[in-house]
Amino acid sequence: MSKRWSLDPDRCFSPEPRQRDLARHLYEGVRELPLVCPHGHVQPSLLADDEPLGDPASMLVVPDHYVVRMLYSQGVALEDLGVPRRDGGDSESDPRRIWRRFCEHFHLFAGTPTGLWLKDELIDLFGVEERPSTENADALFDHLSERLHDPAYRPRALFQRLGVEVLCTTDAATDPLAMHQQLQREGFSVRPTFRPDALVDPTREDWSSSLELLSERSGHDVSDYEGYLRAIEARRSAFREAGATATDHAAFTADLRALDPESAAATFERLTTGRADALDRSRFASHMLAEMARMSTDDGLVMQLHVGSLRDHHQALFERFGRDIGADIPVATEWTRALRPLLNRFGADPGFRLVLYTLDESTYGRELAPLAGHYPALRLGAPWWFFDSVLGMERFLDAVVETAGVFNLAGFNDDTRAYPSIRARHDVWRRVSCNWLAGRVVRGLIDEDVAPDLARALAYDQAKATYRLP
Amino acid sequence: MSKRWSLDPDRCFSPEPRQRDLARHLYEGVRELPLVCPHGHVQPSLLADDEPLGDPASMLVVPDHYVVRMLYSQGVALEDLGVPRRDGGDSESDPRRIWRRFCEHFHLFAGTPTGLWLKDELIDLFGVEERPSTENADALFDHLSERLHDPAYRPRALFQRLGVEVLCTTDAATDPLAMHQQLQREGFSVRPTFRPDALVDPTREDWSSSLELLSERSGHDVSDYEGYLRAIEARRSAFREAGATATDHAAFTADLRALDPESAAATFERLTTGRADALDRSRFASHMLAEMARMSTDDGLVMQLHVGSLRDHHQALFERFGRDIGADIPVATEWTRALRPLLNRFGADPGFRLVLYTLDESTYGRELAPLAGHYPALRLGAPWWFFDSVLGMERFLDAVVETAGVFNLAGFNDDTRAYPSIRARHDVWRRVSCNWLAGRVVRGLIDEDVAPDLARALAYDQAKATYRLP
Amino acid sequence: MSKRWSLDPDRCFSPEPRQRDLARHLYEGVRELPLVCPHGHVQPSLLADDEPLGDPASMLVVPDHYVVRMLYSQGVALEDLGVPRRDGGDSESDPRRIWRRFCEHFHLFAGTPTGLWLKDELIDLFGVEERPSTENADALFDHLSERLHDPAYRPRALFQRLGVEVLCTTDAATDPLAMHQQLQREGFSVRPTFRPDALVDPTREDWSSSLELLSERSGHDVSDYEGYLRAIEARRSAFREAGATATDHAAFTADLRALDPESAAATFERLTTGRADALDRSRFASHMLAEMARMSTDDGLVMQLHVGSLRDHHQALFERFGRDIGADIPVATEWTRALRPLLNRFGADPGFRLVLYTLDESTYGRELAPLAGHYPALRLGAPWWFFDSVLGMERFLDAVVETAGVFNLAGFNDDTRAYPSIRARHDVWRRVSCNWLAGRVVRGLIDEDVAPDLARALAYDQAKATYRLP
Repeated sequence: MSKRWSLDPDRCFSPEPRQRDLARHLYEGVRELPLVCPHGHVQPSLLADDEPLGDPASMLVVPDHYVVRMLYSQGVALEDLGVPRRDGGDSESDPRRIWRRFCEHFHLFAGTPTGLWLKDELIDLFGVEERPSTENADALFDHLSERLHDPAYRPRALFQRLGVEVLCTTDAATDPLAMHQQLQREGFSVRPTFRPDALVDPTREDWSSSLELLSERSGHDVSDYEGYLRAIEARRSAFREAGATATDHAAFTADLRALDPESAAATFERLTTGRADALDRSRFASHMLAEMARMSTDDGLVMQLHVGSLRDHHQALFERFGRDIGADIPVATEWTRALRPLLNRFGADPGFRLVLYTLDESTYGRELAPLAGHYPALRLGAPWWFFDSVLGMERFLDAVVETAGVFNLAGFNDDTRAYPSIRARHDVWRRVSCNWLAGRVVRGLIDEDVAPDLARALAYDQAKATYRLP
Repeated sequence: MSKRWSLDPDRCFSPEPRQRDLARHLYEGVRELPLVCPHGHVQPSLLADDEPLGDPASMLVVPDHYVVRMLYSQGVALEDLGVPRRDGGDSESDPRRIWRRFCEHFHLFAGTPTGLWLKDELIDLFGVEERPSTENADALFDHLSERLHDPAYRPRALFQRLGVEVLCTTDAATDPLAMHQQLQREGFSVRPTFRPDALVDPTREDWSSSLELLSERSGHDVSDYEGYLRAIEARRSAFREAGATATDHAAFTADLRALDPESAAATFERLTTGRADALDRSRFASHMLAEMARMSTDDGLVMQLHVGSLRDHHQALFERFGRDIGADIPVATEWTRALRPLLNRFGADPGFRLVLYTLDESTYGRELAPLAGHYPALRLGAPWWFFDSVLGMERFLDAVVETAGVFNLAGFNDDTRAYPSIRARHDVWRRVSCNWLAGRVVRGLIDEDVAPDLARALAYDQAKATYRLP
Repeated sequence: MSKRWSLDPDRCFSPEPRQRDLARHLYEGVRELPLVCPHGHVQPSLLADDEPLGDPASMLVVPDHYVVRMLYSQGVALEDLGVPRRDGGDSESDPRRIWRRFCEHFHLFAGTPTGLWLKDELIDLFGVEERPSTENADALFDHLSERLHDPAYRPRALFQRLGVEVLCTTDAATDPLAMHQQLQREGFSVRPTFRPDALVDPTREDWSSSLELLSERSGHDVSDYEGYLRAIEARRSAFREAGATATDHAAFTADLRALDPESAAATFERLTTGRADALDRSRFASHMLAEMARMSTDDGLVMQLHVGSLRDHHQALFERFGRDIGADIPVATEWTRALRPLLNRFGADPGFRLVLYTLDESTYGRELAPLAGHYPALRLGAPWWFFDSVLGMERFLDAVVETAGVFNLAGFNDDTRAYPSIRARHDVWRRVSCNWLAGRVVRGLIDEDVAPDLARALAYDQAKATYRLP
């Protein structure tokens, strides 16, 4: 049975009348602020090409691993969702059939942030007036297809409509950056972010091939360690010239430990001549993260560190479908000891700025907030991934603000590759943070007259300031 | 001073009027659903014999380690509570005096789930109209004694009155299963659960003696590894024939790692010939859990895994009183890496179903929900033991639903040996889950019209489906 | 712009009307109870000398590492806050300029416990009617300076006005204790606490020098292990005679492991003859904590154990400014295995009382509450340090009461060196615990008629009983 649905204008707010009234008021002050998107995974080509977004399934289902994951957990084969196989084997190619499977299982998303974003997007952006279900799947498919062909839903038109002020993408360190530059010339503030994982982490299979590309792109000989560093510096410089203000790094642990220059050079040589062992590879990866920090103190690029995901947990799926589908599962993370050497070197360096992202909520109050409440260089990134959710945000604010305050937080980022969901994601953060502040005010713990400034800081100012966006 | 007391009809619900109204409404829809009890520790003999439940102390105090533990922590000797000593030494034998000690200390249970269950049971089941205290201890003892001799309080009569649909017991793998079969013939759905800890864990003292019993019960020669496996398979098969749908396993860590068959056989030989060392024992235990998973993929028995309790922490008490009294204390648990080999083998096998129970709440959101939100074979068990409580349930739902949804949860089980408390325990879960859903609805995060289905799923459907109960 | 501000009379309470009304009622019953302060860092000389408290900066800013830390994290140099350098280098000496910097940055404390305490103290104790800001910094400085010269603000006058019943200080084991004795003669219940870290932890630089002082103060020869133990016992005895009821110990881990007496004596000899290695030092430190427990079983001094802070994380600051400024950052803590040997020896000894403090909230429900809900000797200390906050207290009560009940908790202690803030700190605990109890009552989980007793237990009785204060 198809059900009409609508968005609760007070969604995310507490039902308690005083808190709700104040949350509404604070939210009114920030809801229309432009969106600052300092970290995400939208492809710049999407905006550069400005082609229609595609059919409903390939826009909302197939590429969204939050969506695909949930359907898979309940027994839907990835092939039946159109996820392409690495070996070119059969995978559903009819978007309408994929869409139907998604609609049949839409009830699985009840209570999840994916469900919340999809509802917001479908209603607010696409005018879908019924909750997806087996019965209305075809009608919704037709409705969405029509909208997606409307020029008003082209990526550049949406950029304005979503209210994006600045959109930072995440780009291989060897990216040519031409699209970002073109978009900026055409008036879209789309900035690259320097993501050198493939270049600095020799535990990856693509490290060697990345080095070749690095050499080519930078014009530097990378056959020795010095050349390699110069080539990386050149790429950082090219990113800055193309508008980048930040770098981004994924690591399994926060154990960043610089080697002395001689050891680093010798390890690099072993790595490039096939004589390195596993320890060399992991030490060099750890060392190069420390080097990235060092370079940040020079060039001022804000360093983002995402720690604690065991990538491709499900080996068989990884082999069949590749990265980002084989289940990335968090592990416990240790920060206090691991970051000590780095913070002792650069934690008070005015050029340095480090933004930390964790999947281990038990470290919010125990390690991250105390660190951020001390080291001038540190800011805490918004709740990441599984915790980019109403309750995830509330636990984050509950755990960190008492120790680190509001001004050691990096504000929000949407971290999404689902372009049309950007506004819905920021909206959840704005609602939740306003409701959280309202809760503090009605309990007499934050002065009512300062709450609007804090709401604005969380919605807009802190992201911009933290990421050194002009 | 003895105080009249009564049960708040809105207990467990939020005081906020909109949430409370909706919680009431959802609860009305599930409160009278039959109780599905897929995991617990009631003795089948209790129902098979159908004798009166005993005196108040031996029913409510002595065997309940939740109760005894709290009194002990405040200085009451276990001997004074009638806990029998292993060495046959003196222990209080007068139930009235034990009951008095319990009543004198009843205030200790304020705010605990034990307090909540006892209150519900005493008022609702036994018609006790005053809170236990020093003053009314004798009167309550007399009142309860009278009730306990009433045929309406016999175990089988209670089975109906409590509204139990199906009750799964936990049984040694060598159990003869005759009582379960008898009860089923007589119309009581009492099913065994295959609990082979003593057979598969050679770190236990009773491993060797269990093997002998296994050989006897199964009719298989267990002198070599192949025979041992066949004997276990035979017992699993006998359990299935006796109505079992699940197995249950306790482990200190989740590190399940299969040996190759040759190593397993060689280790078994060392174990049975007295040449094994500690490493052999723990590796074999880990291996056999992986074997239990493999057998589950064949015979479809749902595998329950309870991880992370350090048993018999208090050595002196263990020596004086035996298992289950010497304080079982939780430790931190790692799941992501530990379960990877097993989930890579069987995590997508349609025959396999794994239900995980933890005592480490920090893993709910970090590891368990992401795993359950990916692997089709996984379901998350209800909050276990110390977390089978109002706040424990709320933290569980808060931490897992956003990532894993409602349909990757295993619903509730009461896990109790305190037979008369079964209904009170399910009632807390039903109230808390309805209140939780109501909270999501009034914040606009779950659609009001789907909430009743989710309430029913959590109260009844998910337990039945997860445990493959007919 | 300077803003008038005022204290919300219902601060910390839930906005939900029924809960708020009951919280108010419970709070009225405890708000004026005398303050029991069993653990803190006020200097006894403050009261012995009874000099004026000093200028506003040196009273409220410079010595408060909660305040200084937050300003430092936002780029204010410690020198500019008047923190004295170890090398005697320049540091701001004008209290008015320090005060101005503090006022300029007062917005950083929004939502923090420091902000809450300061507001309470400034309004309630000092009659400051505007929120500190750049504009009013000088006026507030003048206002506070005037008050601080008023005899009514002398330490002894404040002792009465704050309503302190008993104040325990924390003192080196070699402290002469004369001031405590003098204060007691003059009618102030100021008791010492035996803090032997420097004497029992040979990983510290000051261990050797402490031994000399120990020998001098105790009159015992400490050149061998027996003499060393006798000297420590003598100091414990002197502390008891001077009114101490407790000892206090900081440890990085909870791994307390007694050596056998011969090994201990041999290790001591290696330590005092310069032949010890790092392992000797850490093993001896661990052993001596176990010895402190053993001595407690004899002399009845309550043993406090504070675990899990990595001291002086920021090496450069430690070198420039010394201890307590270089950022003490928590680490994850393991209790279940670590405390097992000790609890197996003394956990049921009626003479022993162990109060545990943690910075790892993930252990509240997983390890600490189950341990305290079993071992008679254990009590759980109030939320410590970063968690001495509204939400920290709520998480603590949420996590431990269901398992350990109220009567295995040690009540509150303010743990402060900021003397004028003592009442504000107790007030937060009293408000939060009353509000928490009210929340349980309105959800039907605690009987309304027992809540006042529980409120009083948490506010007053438990602290007194736990610390064996007369």
